[in-house]
Amino acid sequence: MMNWEKLARELVQETESKIILLVLDGLGDLPLEGRTPLEAAHKPNLDQLAAKSVCGLTDPIFRGITPGSGPSHLALFGYDPLKYILGRGILEALGLGVEVRGEDLVARGNFATLKDGLIVDRRAGRISSIENEKLCARLNESLRKRKGVGITLFPGKEHRFVARFRGKNLSDSLSDADPQKEKNPLTYTEPLHEEARETAVLINRFIDEVTEILKDSPKANTILLRGFSKLPSLPTFSELYALKAAAIASYPMYKGLARLLGMEVVEANESLEELFLALENNYQKYNFFYLHVKKTDTAGEDGNFEAKKKAIEEVDEFIPRLVALKPEVLVITSDHSTPCLLKSHSWHPNPLLLFSRTCIPDEVEIFTERGCSRGYLGRFEAIYLMPLILAHAGKLKKFGA
Amino acid sequence: MMNWEKLARELVQETESKIILLVLDGLGDLPLEGRTPLEAAHKPNLDQLAAKSVCGLTDPIFRGITPGSGPSHLALFGYDPLKYILGRGILEALGLGVEVRGEDLVARGNFATLKDGLIVDRRAGRISSIENEKLCARLNESLRKRKGVGITLFPGKEHRFVARFRGKNLSDSLSDADPQKEKNPLTYTEPLHEEARETAVLINRFIDEVTEILKDSPKANTILLRGFSKLPSLPTFSELYALKAAAIASYPMYKGLARLLGMEVVEANESLEELFLALENNYQKYNFFYLHVKKTDTAGEDGNFEAKKKAIEEVDEFIPRLVALKPEVLVITSDHSTPCLLKSHSWHPNPLLLFSRTCIPDEVEIFTERGCSRGYLGRFEAIYLMPLILAHAGKLKKFGA
Repeated sequence: MMNWEKLARELVQETESKIILLVLDGLGDLPLEGRTPLEAAHKPNLDQLAAKSVCGLTDPIFRGITPGSGPSHLALFGYDPLKYILGRGILEALGLGVEVRGEDLVARGNFATLKDGLIVDRRAGRISSIENEKLCARLNESLRKRKGVGITLFPGKEHRFVARFRGKNLSDSLSDADPQKEKNPLTYTEPLHEEARETAVLINRFIDEVTEILKDSPKANTILLRGFSKLPSLPTFSELYALKAAAIASYPMYKGLARLLGMEVVEANESLEELFLALENNYQKYNFFYLHVKKTDTAGEDGNFEAKKKAIEEVDEFIPRLVALKPEVLVITSDHSTPCLLKSHSWHPNPLLLFSRTCIPDEVEIFTERGCSRGYLGRFEAIYLMPLILAHAGKLKKFGA
Repeated sequence: MMNWEKLARELVQETESKIILLVLDGLGDLPLEGRTPLEAAHKPNLDQLAAKSVCGLTDPIFRGITPGSGPSHLALFGYDPLKYILGRGILEALGLGVEVRGEDLVARGNFATLKDGLIVDRRAGRISSIENEKLCARLNESLRKRKGVGITLFPGKEHRFVARFRGKNLSDSLSDADPQKEKNPLTYTEPLHEEARETAVLINRFIDEVTEILKDSPKANTILLRGFSKLPSLPTFSELYALKAAAIASYPMYKGLARLLGMEVVEANESLEELFLALENNYQKYNFFYLHVKKTDTAGEDGNFEAKKKAIEEVDEFIPRLVALKPEVLVITSDHSTPCLLKSHSWHPNPLLLFSRTCIPDEVEIFTERGCSRGYLGRFEAIYLMPLILAHAGKLKKFGA
């Protein structure tokens, strides 16, 4: 698949045709008492659409690989997830909605407890998110600007935060400043390459400074930093596909990822009504729409079969509004599976339907994992979905003569 | 798939067994009023054979990519179409049946109209093919031989021709000598690399000479040249697969391509009777037969559903003659789809049947797009077909111990 990006640059042509990609996060599941949430749900609209569509299954990366949301979305958008690596710090920053620019360095942080030179609690007794916010605010006020590098802490949940270092020539070739196990000494970062030496000095001074400022705090009196990372250099949707793309999503992580790919983010809250209204209201302005629904994944992570079934049924009611827009290509699928049984992402494939004038409707008349496995598209790696979508939208020229 | 060629060289063994590959060009299609031409056609022989065969679908390149005939045939023959690129000039030359050797440089040409230093008609008023023939003959007589380089023009349809430059050290790293748009000045080729400098000088002098010779011609008084290309270095069927291969085809393009791969061309005209007779008459001489039927593609390009259906029905009558030859492997498939709806090549997969003593007959009892999608072979990229064919023919040794 190494050649798709190269081929895309060669074959893509701009057209007026419109594409809607509806991602029901974590949709695929495993049977509970014989049925998956998709099999148990009453969803006449999705099933009717499946009957008119071509169906299949996609493996997010390849068989057996459970992806995080970063790699699974990259693949879904036709970016090689094994080539473009999004560091942990970057993903955490995107998840918190932190603005990250090209030269920024980011890291995931924990507040922790230091006693007699040893880290005795890596999570500072899981301080409250409110206390976390206060600590970050206090540090952001107190910290000195070092050598033209601006440092900002962004609070997350409980003891977690993101540290952003904004300046020139920062390197992310750094080991974690985290002892990993408790009752070990405070650990500093070490440069993994010569070029990272100065950045390491800067970060270690920063750790010392924070520890000094927080020395009287009972629990959160130091920090651990890990997953130092910078943005990878990604071609945008416009460069690669000549698409004017909108991301309609409510969660920061997905909005951040879409921005990385040069999509414009249309804000929407978690209500489906708002999500689909945002699509309708912006339908003239773009020719690619990425719609993200989070509820299916959340229900899977909670192991809540009924909630997942209900989330699917709720989405089903909005399907006629998608069809009514008459996009040239309408795709409904997922980024990865989140089976209730596992309460986590998994490697199981994503059900997929593609509806277009140029699709060959197959025998699949029910939009489920097992239904889609009988689809004409077969089972394939998710990275091949974008070529297929672009082809059906008439946006790919012929290869060779 | 980068390793197939390497593996082939390691694993191939010569055997007596015979392989017939029948290619129904542009066979796959989309439903019109619910049925594709394959679904609408009465073809008892193809269906009976499918019932005894193992079936599947192949993507010519990969999902979503619409191939030209060059790349799609290379893939069908097990050559990586993304590695072996056939230039536009080469393909045009093959299409006209121009003999091209290893060091030849070829280009596609147009006769054009030059007035007051500007190209005012890129197609010289679409002169007749007969006038074109006369112009090429006149130029071929008049042109001087330059620095040991022989130049020959081969007429195509209307204003089109192929120019062949035969000599040593010619380079194809050349820009198009074509202003692309009218009312621009006559454009010369420019070397894209230093090594092409001398070739560019030679070609530009040739353009000037032609323009001088044609200066009194009312319409066709200059030429445009584009798609400069040389033959890629391709291993032959005999080197790679130890096969003695025959191509039985009527169209120059397919004969030319087969010759490139070292197949011997058995001439046949467009009549199916002649095609199958040529196969029968030469059956003892070779152990691999590539039979090419063009009519299915032509009907698709014309958007003529009935003609495509009829072409399939005509082929069907000859199927018993293929079976009667008792080849060890009989494969019927296509190079790409040409849906009547699109009137052009498309990315849709090819139906495929493989009949052999070592195949596992599946449930497929009808040779259609949707029938084959339920086949045991599944859906796979066409480049994997040759390994499969060779395996069923007993021509591949075990890999490793």
